[in-house]
Amino acid sequence: MSEETTSVHYINYLALDKVLDSQNLLSGDGKEAAHEEMLFIIIHQTYELWFKQILHEIGSTMDLFKADKINESNVGVIVRRMDRVNKIMTTLIGQLDILETMTSLDFLDFRDHLSPASGFQSHQFRKIEVMLGLKIKKRHQFGGCPYHSQFEGEKKEEILDLEATESLFSLVEKWLERIPFLNMEGFDFTQKYEGAVNQMLDKEISGIKAANLTDSDREIRIRMIEENKKYFERVLSESEHNKAIEEGETTLSYRATMSALLINLYRDQPVLHLPYQFLRSLVEFDHKIATWRFRHVQMVEKMLGQKIGTGGSSGQGYLKETVDKHKIFTDLANISTLMISRSYLPELPQNIKDTLGFNYTK
Amino acid sequence: MSEETTSVHYINYLALDKVLDSQNLLSGDGKEAAHEEMLFIIIHQTYELWFKQILHEIGSTMDLFKADKINESNVGVIVRRMDRVNKIMTTLIGQLDILETMTSLDFLDFRDHLSPASGFQSHQFRKIEVMLGLKIKKRHQFGGCPYHSQFEGEKKEEILDLEATESLFSLVEKWLERIPFLNMEGFDFTQKYEGAVNQMLDKEISGIKAANLTDSDREIRIRMIEENKKYFERVLSESEHNKAIEEGETTLSYRATMSALLINLYRDQPVLHLPYQFLRSLVEFDHKIATWRFRHVQMVEKMLGQKIGTGGSSGQGYLKETVDKHKIFTDLANISTLMISRSYLPELPQNIKDTLGFNYTK
Amino acid sequence: MSEETTSVHYINYLALDKVLDSQNLLSGDGKEAAHEEMLFIIIHQTYELWFKQILHEIGSTMDLFKADKINESNVGVIVRRMDRVNKIMTTLIGQLDILETMTSLDFLDFRDHLSPASGFQSHQFRKIEVMLGLKIKKRHQFGGCPYHSQFEGEKKEEILDLEATESLFSLVEKWLERIPFLNMEGFDFTQKYEGAVNQMLDKEISGIKAANLTDSDREIRIRMIEENKKYFERVLSESEHNKAIEEGETTLSYRATMSALLINLYRDQPVLHLPYQFLRSLVEFDHKIATWRFRHVQMVEKMLGQKIGTGGSSGQGYLKETVDKHKIFTDLANISTLMISRSYLPELPQNIKDTLGFNYTK
Amino acid sequence: MSEETTSVHYINYLALDKVLDSQNLLSGDGKEAAHEEMLFIIIHQTYELWFKQILHEIGSTMDLFKADKINESNVGVIVRRMDRVNKIMTTLIGQLDILETMTSLDFLDFRDHLSPASGFQSHQFRKIEVMLGLKIKKRHQFGGCPYHSQFEGEKKEEILDLEATESLFSLVEKWLERIPFLNMEGFDFTQKYEGAVNQMLDKEISGIKAANLTDSDREIRIRMIEENKKYFERVLSESEHNKAIEEGETTLSYRATMSALLINLYRDQPVLHLPYQFLRSLVEFDHKIATWRFRHVQMVEKMLGQKIGTGGSSGQGYLKETVDKHKIFTDLANISTLMISRSYLPELPQNIKDTLGFNYTK
Repeated sequence: MSEETTSVHYINYLALDKVLDSQNLLSGDGKEAAHEEMLFIIIHQTYELWFKQILHEIGSTMDLFKADKINESNVGVIVRRMDRVNKIMTTLIGQLDILETMTSLDFLDFRDHLSPASGFQSHQFRKIEVMLGLKIKKRHQFGGCPYHSQFEGEKKEEILDLEATESLFSLVEKWLERIPFLNMEGFDFTQKYEGAVNQMLDKEISGIKAANLTDSDREIRIRMIEENKKYFERVLSESEHNKAIEEGETTLSYRATMSALLINLYRDQPVLHLPYQFLRSLVEFDHKIATWRFRHVQMVEKMLGQKIGTGGSSGQGYLKETVDKHKIFTDLANISTLMISRSYLPELPQNIKDTLGFNYTK
Repeated sequence: MSEETTSVHYINYLALDKVLDSQNLLSGDGKEAAHEEMLFIIIHQTYELWFKQILHEIGSTMDLFKADKINESNVGVIVRRMDRVNKIMTTLIGQLDILETMTSLDFLDFRDHLSPASGFQSHQFRKIEVMLGLKIKKRHQFGGCPYHSQFEGEKKEEILDLEATESLFSLVEKWLERIPFLNMEGFDFTQKYEGAVNQMLDKEISGIKAANLTDSDREIRIRMIEENKKYFERVLSESEHNKAIEEGETTLSYRATMSALLINLYRDQPVLHLPYQFLRSLVEFDHKIATWRFRHVQMVEKMLGQKIGTGGSSGQGYLKETVDKHKIFTDLANISTLMISRSYLPELPQNIKDTLGFNYTK
Repeated sequence: MSEETTSVHYINYLALDKVLDSQNLLSGDGKEAAHEEMLFIIIHQTYELWFKQILHEIGSTMDLFKADKINESNVGVIVRRMDRVNKIMTTLIGQLDILETMTSLDFLDFRDHLSPASGFQSHQFRKIEVMLGLKIKKRHQFGGCPYHSQFEGEKKEEILDLEATESLFSLVEKWLERIPFLNMEGFDFTQKYEGAVNQMLDKEISGIKAANLTDSDREIRIRMIEENKKYFERVLSESEHNKAIEEGETTLSYRATMSALLINLYRDQPVLHLPYQFLRSLVEFDHKIATWRFRHVQMVEKMLGQKIGTGGSSGQGYLKETVDKHKIFTDLANISTLMISRSYLPELPQNIKDTLGFNYTK
Repeated sequence: MSEETTSVHYINYLALDKVLDSQNLLSGDGKEAAHEEMLFIIIHQTYELWFKQILHEIGSTMDLFKADKINESNVGVIVRRMDRVNKIMTTLIGQLDILETMTSLDFLDFRDHLSPASGFQSHQFRKIEVMLGLKIKKRHQFGGCPYHSQFEGEKKEEILDLEATESLFSLVEKWLERIPFLNMEGFDFTQKYEGAVNQMLDKEISGIKAANLTDSDREIRIRMIEENKKYFERVLSESEHNKAIEEGETTLSYRATMSALLINLYRDQPVLHLPYQFLRSLVEFDHKIATWRFRHVQMVEKMLGQKIGTGGSSGQGYLKETVDKHKIFTDLANISTLMISRSYLPELPQNIKDTLGFNYTK
C-alpha cells in the first residue's frame, strides 16, 4: 500500500469514465443508431489496447537486447514476454469470432458513415510491423502510396524514425552473431555438422539402393536426396549464403544462421534451452500474425464478399498478399530444414558439455 | 458515405487518443514503473469494454421483450444477439490465459499501490448481474456490506433502480407465460405429457423385472425409477411447484416452466426452433459466466495463493461461492430432467401441427 | 435399458481393447521406440475418428436433401448437424497445437520408418472432399497422378462412385432451385431487387457529387461505384451468369443464386431464418477447412521447414495451393457482395409476409 | 527409411481398418440406429486415445525422475512433455463443445441401451489419477464402493499396484528434497527468507499506521497483516508443518516445500528457470483437469438436468465434488501465498550467483 494514496477505486484506477465514454457512433444516438456499430467500435478499441500491450512487450524486449551485455537471466524474462505476446495473439485471432456475428446486412446499416476510415490507418499496428523488422521495400504496396502516407505530423515521423533504427530482427541477428558457441575450443561446429549431414545422406542413399523398389521409384528417391544435398551445401557455404542475401532469398546473416542452427540442434543442453524457446517463440509470433491476417481475410469475405473496403480498396486482396509476404522470421523457421536426427548429431566433447551445463552439481 | 462528413480517420473514429492515453501506472513512469502493471490495466480495460458491449446486447434484448407484442421476426434477432454475448464470454474466459502469464512475483511489484481497488468495484459487471435477474437476497454476501455500498451517487442509484425493475429473467418468464401453446384446441399438453411419462416409467419397470439381474441390483434400479417418478409428479403439480417457489427451491413460475418444457420437447417444429435456440442460449450464458468465475478463481489461486486480495478480502473464497450461487437460469437448465425419449412423445394432432407449421399470429 | 442386455461395461461398449491396441510403433518397442511416435499415431487416429463423424453427419444431411419433399422440420435438424461439424472442425484446428509440441528434431527420430506413408492417403478425408463437391478437374493436381491412385480395390471404387453421384453442393443447389420464393404472387424478386440496387447506387453517386472532395478523390469514388454497378449487372443477368459458369468463374446455377440472395436479404422473416443459418454454416465449414489446411501448412513448416515430405512431396506447397482452391461454397460466400442496406430493401407485400410467417407448406 | 519395409501405407500404419471398425451402436444399424450414438462413441474413443497419450507422457516423466541421478538436460525434456500434456488437456476441455451439440432429447434416443456403462469405468482415467498421486483415502467415495470395484482381473490388479508404488507427486517431492540449493555455503535460505518476510510485514504495518485511515479501517488492515504473519510462521516452522501434514491440511514435506519456495523466488536465475517452469506446469495440469471436470458437470447438467446417470448415480454430484477434492498439487499452488516482492528478496552472494548461473561467460 502506498503511504500517500489512502484509497484507490477500481473505476478511477482504470480511467473508466474516459475509456467507457469513447464510443461515438457515427450512425447517431438512440433510435437513430445502428445497433451493430457499438460492436464495431468496441472490438477495434480492444484490438488497439492489445496492440499497445504488444508494443510494450516488444519494446521492453528490444531494450534488453540493446544492453552491451545481455544478462543471462534476461533470456528467461524475454521468453516469458514473448509467451505473453503469443497468448495475446491467440485472443486476437479468437475474438474475430465475435466480429463474425456481425453480418453483411448488419454492417451495411452504418458502413457508409465510416468512409474512408480503415484498419490500414492503425498507427500501432504499423509500428508493430516496423519494430519487428518489416522494411518498406518488403511490404506489399497498396494503391500506389507508401503505407506511412496514412499518417501526418508526429505520427508519421515516429514511423519513419522506427524504420531507420534497430528492429527486433536486427537485434536478434546481432545477438546470435555474438553468442560464443560456434568456435569452441576443439570443436568446429560447422565442419562437424557438415560431416554428419554427409554421413546421413550417404546412408539414406545406400538404404534406397538396397531396398526392393521399382527402378523409377528408386530414381525419384535418389533425386530427392540429391536435391536435399544441394540445399545443405548452399546453406553451409558462406559465399552462397551471402549471394542468397543479395538476391533477397534470405535475410539472416551467415553467422547468425549458424548460431540458430546450433541452438536448434543442441537445445537439450541446459544453457541452450531458453535460447531455443526464444527462437521458437519468434517463429510462433510470425505464424500467429499470419493466422490473424488469414482469418481477417475470411471475416472480410463473409462480411463484404468481393466488395470494395471502406478505405477505397479491395482490402481482402491486400490482406491476402500480406499473409505470407509480411512474415519476418522465415529464416528461423527454415532452420527446421537443416535438422538431422539425434543419431547423427556430433557428440560434444565432455569439456564443452561441462561448459554448456550448469555447474551446481560440482 | 455521409454527405456532411468528408473524411473520417480510423484514429479519430475510435477516439484512440483518449483510449490509448488512459493507462496511468501507479507504480510510476519509465524506470520506476513495474513492467507488468501495464498488462494489469489493459486487460481490465478490455474486460470493461466487453462488459459495455454485453450491456448493449442484453439491454436491447430486454427492450424487444418489453414490447406489447413480440414480433416473431425478433426472436431471430434475439437469438443472434445472445449468440454474440456467448462468443464474447468465450473470449473473456480465454483471455484469462494472458493474465496468467503474470505471476505472483510480478504482481507483487505493484500490488501495494492498488489497495483497496478491486474487481468487486466493477459497476458494469454488477449491472450485468442485476439486469440478468440476480436479486440482492440471492447474492453471496461479502464482508457484511451490501454489494452496492461500493458505489456512490448516480452509480449507486443506477444499480438500485435496476434492482427495482424488470430483469431479463422476469421478461423471459412473462414471455413464456404468454406463449399460446399450452392449451391448444383439443390438446392439453400437461395431461398428455403426464400420460407419456407414466407410460415410459412403467415400461422401464417391467423391463427391469424381466431382466436377468441380482435382487439387490433390481431393487436399486426400481428405487431409482420411483424417485424419478416423484420428481416428475412434484414438477407437474402446480401447487407443489408453487410451494417449491415459496421455499426458494425454484424460481420460474409454473406456467412458464410448462411452456419451456413444451418448447424443449417439440423443438423440431419449425415455429419452436428459434424459441428453443433462445432458451438454450440463456443456459449457455449462465454456464459461461460460471466458467469465467471458475477460471478467475484459478487465476487468483495461481497469483495470490491463499493471500488476502487488494480489496481486503479473501477474494478467492467469495468468487468460489458465486460460481454456482449467482446462476440465474438454473430452472431452464433443469428442464432437461423432464425430457422423455422421442418415442414416448405425444404425437401432435394434425391441426396443431399445421398451426405450429405456420403463422400463429393469425 | 434394453431388456436383452443385462450389463454393458464402458470398456466393451467402446471396444477399447481394440482401439487402444492399435498403436504399432515402427520405431520399435520399449527402449528402441522413439518417444514421440506415439503422439504421431494417436493424433492421426483421433483425426480419422473425427473424419468418420464428419462423414456420418454430412452423409445424413445429404440423405435428408435427397428426399422428394424436404420436411420443414428437417432444416432445423440439418442446421444442428452442420453446427456440430463446425465444432468438430474447431477441435481439429485447435489440436494442431498438440502436434506442434513435436519438433523437427523429435520427428526425425522416427520419420524414416514412415516413408512413403502420408496424409494424402487418408481415404476418409478424400471422401469428405468429394462428398462436399470437390471435382477432380478442380483439384490441385499433385505430382502428375490423380489423387485416387493412392487407393486400390474397393477403396478406389468407393471414391470414384462418389465422384459420379450427387454431392452436398449439387443437392443444396437443387434445393435452392426448388424453393418457392422467387416468384411469389405479385412480387418479382429479381426485378424488385434490381430496382433497389440502382436506387442505392444513384444515391451514393449524388452523395459523392455533393460532398466536399478533391477532384481526384471524387473521381476515384465514382469509378468504384460504377464497378460495383457492373458487378451487380453481371450477376443479375441470367445469360451473363451462365457464361460465367461456362468459363469456370462461378459454379452455382442462376436460379439457386437468386434463391440464396433472397434468403440472405430476408433472413429476418421467420421462415427464412433456418435456411439462412444453414447457408451460413456451409460457408463457415468451407472457411474452417481452409483454416485447418492453413494451420497445417504452418505446422509442416515448423516441423520440416522446406524439407520434402514422407510421401515424396513438398507437401507444404501442395497444402498451400489447396487452401483456396479446394473451397466448395465460394459462391455462397460471395452473396455478401450483393447485400444492400435494409433501408433499400424492397418491402414485402403483407400477403407475402404472411406466407413467410411459416405456412409455405399449404 | 527402414531398409526392410519397402512401403508403408497411411491406412495400415494407423491400423485404421481396426480403429474405424470399432463403433458398435447398441441402438442398432441403419434405420434403427439412433443418429447421435455415433458421436457418443467416437468422442469417448478420442478421449481414451488422448488418455493413452497422457499416460505415455506421465509414465516417461516418472521414469526420468526414477533415475538415480536426474540428468540436468532432462528437466528440459520433462518441461516439454508436461507442456504437451497441458495442450492435450486444452483440447479435451474444448471438445466438450462438440458433445454439447447433443441435447437431452437426442441422448434419450439411445441412453437406455447403455446402462450401466459409465465414464466411471474408464480404466485409463483412473490410472492417470493414481499415477499423479490421488490416494484412495483422499478420493470422493461414490455410492459406498471403492472406485476399483469397477474393474476385474488384471485391470483391477494394475490399479492396485499403481496405488502401492511411487506417484508423480512422490517422485517430485523426492526430487525437490534432493535439490542442493537450500543450504548453500554461507547462505541459509530459510533464515534469510524469514528475515525478509518480517521486514516486509513491519513496513506494511508502519505504512498503515502513518496512513490517513479511519480507526476501524486501520484496525481491519492490521489484523489482516497479522493473520498473514501467522500464516508465514506456521509454514516456516518445520514442526508446525509436520503437524499440518498429520492433520491432512497439507501433503508436501517441509524440505520439499522450502525447495519449491526457493525455486519460485529465484526463478530468474538461469539454473532455476526450467525447474520453475516444471513446477508451474504441474499446477497448470491440476487446474486443467479441474476445469475439465467442471465443464463436464455443466455438460451433464445440460444433457440430463438432475437426472440419474447411466451408471445408476447422480453423476453430476460426484463430478462436482471431485473438481476440488481430487487436486494433487495444491501445495505447489499455495507457494504463491509465500511470495514476497522482489524488493525484499534477499540478495544472493556473488559466489552463489555464479553457481546458479551458466559458466559459458567464463
